[in-house]
Amino acid sequence: MENVLAVLNLGELAHAFSKMGMFPVFDLAYYIVSILYLKYEPGSVEVSRRSPVASWLCAMLYCFGSYILADIMLGSSPVDYFQHNSHILLASAVWYLIFYCPLNLFYKCVAFLPVKLVLVALKEVVRVRKIAAGVHHAHQAYHHGFFIMVIVGYVKGSGVALMSNFEQLLRGVWRPETNEILSMSFPTKASLYGAILFTLQEAHWLPVSKSTLILVFTLFMATCKVVMTARHSHGSPFALIESWTCHLLFGSPLGCGEEDNHHAPVAAAPSSPLKSKEELSEGARKRKAKKAE
Amino acid sequence: MENVLAVLNLGELAHAFSKMGMFPVFDLAYYIVSILYLKYEPGSVEVSRRSPVASWLCAMLYCFGSYILADIMLGSSPVDYFQHNSHILLASAVWYLIFYCPLNLFYKCVAFLPVKLVLVALKEVVRVRKIAAGVHHAHQAYHHGFFIMVIVGYVKGSGVALMSNFEQLLRGVWRPETNEILSMSFPTKASLYGAILFTLQEAHWLPVSKSTLILVFTLFMATCKVVMTARHSHGSPFALIESWTCHLLFGSPLGCGEEDNHHAPVAAAPSSPLKSKEELSEGARKRKAKKAE
Amino acid sequence: MENVLAVLNLGELAHAFSKMGMFPVFDLAYYIVSILYLKYEPGSVEVSRRSPVASWLCAMLYCFGSYILADIMLGSSPVDYFQHNSHILLASAVWYLIFYCPLNLFYKCVAFLPVKLVLVALKEVVRVRKIAAGVHHAHQAYHHGFFIMVIVGYVKGSGVALMSNFEQLLRGVWRPETNEILSMSFPTKASLYGAILFTLQEAHWLPVSKSTLILVFTLFMATCKVVMTARHSHGSPFALIESWTCHLLFGSPLGCGEEDNHHAPVAAAPSSPLKSKEELSEGARKRKAKKAE
Repeated sequence: MENVLAVLNLGELAHAFSKMGMFPVFDLAYYIVSILYLKYEPGSVEVSRRSPVASWLCAMLYCFGSYILADIMLGSSPVDYFQHNSHILLASAVWYLIFYCPLNLFYKCVAFLPVKLVLVALKEVVRVRKIAAGVHHAHQAYHHGFFIMVIVGYVKGSGVALMSNFEQLLRGVWRPETNEILSMSFPTKASLYGAILFTLQEAHWLPVSKSTLILVFTLFMATCKVVMTARHSHGSPFALIESWTCHLLFGSPLGCGEEDNHHAPVAAAPSSPLKSKEELSEGARKRKAKKAE
Repeated sequence: MENVLAVLNLGELAHAFSKMGMFPVFDLAYYIVSILYLKYEPGSVEVSRRSPVASWLCAMLYCFGSYILADIMLGSSPVDYFQHNSHILLASAVWYLIFYCPLNLFYKCVAFLPVKLVLVALKEVVRVRKIAAGVHHAHQAYHHGFFIMVIVGYVKGSGVALMSNFEQLLRGVWRPETNEILSMSFPTKASLYGAILFTLQEAHWLPVSKSTLILVFTLFMATCKVVMTARHSHGSPFALIESWTCHLLFGSPLGCGEEDNHHAPVAAAPSSPLKSKEELSEGARKRKAKKAE
Repeated sequence: MENVLAVLNLGELAHAFSKMGMFPVFDLAYYIVSILYLKYEPGSVEVSRRSPVASWLCAMLYCFGSYILADIMLGSSPVDYFQHNSHILLASAVWYLIFYCPLNLFYKCVAFLPVKLVLVALKEVVRVRKIAAGVHHAHQAYHHGFFIMVIVGYVKGSGVALMSNFEQLLRGVWRPETNEILSMSFPTKASLYGAILFTLQEAHWLPVSKSTLILVFTLFMATCKVVMTARHSHGSPFALIESWTCHLLFGSPLGCGEEDNHHAPVAAAPSSPLKSKEELSEGARKRKAKKAE
């Protein structure tokens, strides 16, 4: 009986958690963390001084890129989400405070590590909810389109990362030698796995309820991201399993899951090494984090 | 009584002006001026000799880019406007005459300054009408989507300028260090302000009728463009106000409205100075204008 | 009477041919040949080892690029075709076998010239069928949109070639100096002519039945491609006619139809010669074909 009660409580907890509204608290955390990462990007502060419109547009891509990409994938208007004026205004306010607050006060508050860790955890709640919603939305459009469900869940979870080349182009930066699919960071990879799990659940091949999956996956994502942010590391928890799977299935050298090892050139012609996005920006990000304060 | 009569006449004039058909006279002027600017682009004449298909496609992007972008924004078919066969045929005829007319006769006629000034004024009539139509179209799709209305009005007014990187890519040219949002030219900036004004009017926050706003804004745009074309200048009438607004709101150095001053690098990595599009092409344009004759 | 019988038989043959199902045999050939060409691309094998997801995505673009582009043109979901799970699974299986089969056995089988010639011929059957279907689909959406019909037929026939810059970007390769419209390869050019023919037929300006046109054009395309593949040549059968037409209409130097002669620079600024895509990749393809075995 105690087991049944425990299960019922967990089930109810999961159900209540999956019905919890994201706006405004969780969405606010999502906007803050996203625009914080934008500020870390080399050159973004100069862009905010020279061209506030471009800076605002980049901030909107960081905050709403997942909705834009998912709408593009499903053939809807890419700016459909912009009808939610309150969400856009909130994100714009966050953008203004992070880039233009006198004495950089707001930035210093949210970049303070304990605060940042809380915000990062809240952001992961939103990410997982988006993946689930994306898979569900695709399922309604294509009842048996399992590939489509995975694709839409994937873009909902990854967001702006998947269009990073073009978001950077908006800021006058062009780095064609790498992209988020060629060398996936942890959130992008986890979004792919999450999209697959939610698709399996939607197709009734995974014998768990959606709310339980949301709760479990959220706990996993939030824990990983909080630990990685606290340690300033990019090591992925998937690394070992991926390494062996890639080696067996795809003949990859051991360590394919480690995006830090992508050094080999990929093209004979004016080629550039297949660097991980982290490697290119990690050093710059640390320098920028100091400079931005 | 005389005042009322004067107002009635102005109101009727504005109403008649806003109902005036754009095809074929005004649209023809739009196509001629647009394809003239394409001919000024470095390399476009060589492309027209080597690959007429690519040249034609670029000309179509210059003439109909606003419709293509607006349709993309609203989730419709990007080639929807191409169903208007007569418009496409007219634009194609203009393209052929400008690039391939024996002895370059047509080009010499339309590039003759007095003729060009008239055509430029007529083009601005079309631009303003497009902005108003774009805002109205977005309003019908999203009754309270004010951000969407501004975005759609903006892309309708700016046209191909907003996709200049990709239009250039079609011609084999790639300049990622600048784009029309990072360093806005006068027409793009004016389209943004116009889109905001028309959105305020559509939302009944601006107490003027749409036809009056169309008339006033058209007179403003036509006057500015004619004066700028006559003087071969790129100075913007907004410069002073923008400079102070940007300095107060965004901490920009005085002169942020002047796109001529965008010299500072924007990225630490293989960065390029944030040059205005005019600076990169102005010298080339003057050389090309001579060469094209 | 014999003539009538002969005509009836040819008509019935053409009708039966146009109704023949493409899946799975012809589609399988299309996937094999397409992914074979992907394997020839410099660097694609390294990408398959380092990032199987990127490799799989490129393979899907090669196999289904025509459907993706046509759906984009007509404002539908770009991933609409991915609802056909069996087609995606078959293409994925071909991708896996070509890139990861032990001892490269599958690749060696399909790259064996007699086998390859059969597959190439079958691929052309699919290409022509796609052009016809694209024109028909566009006709249903836009009854008098003749330009739209040509555009949709063109992208259905050309497929991934028209988005080659972005497909290469996915693999970390960026070659902005050329693209498939600026220097068209034979299949792309033939797709354009085919789209025009099928549009004329759909508009009843070409007095042949659609099935006859499909049969004739398929025989033409299959013959040309088989001969060109057997000879390892890129010479186009259109070269002479195009040369004279371009010279008369567009003032091109004689030999504009020959994409091998596109050497002149097209831009004054950091320009690159207007190289044909073949020139850039031909040598690399031959080296890669040897290396891939």
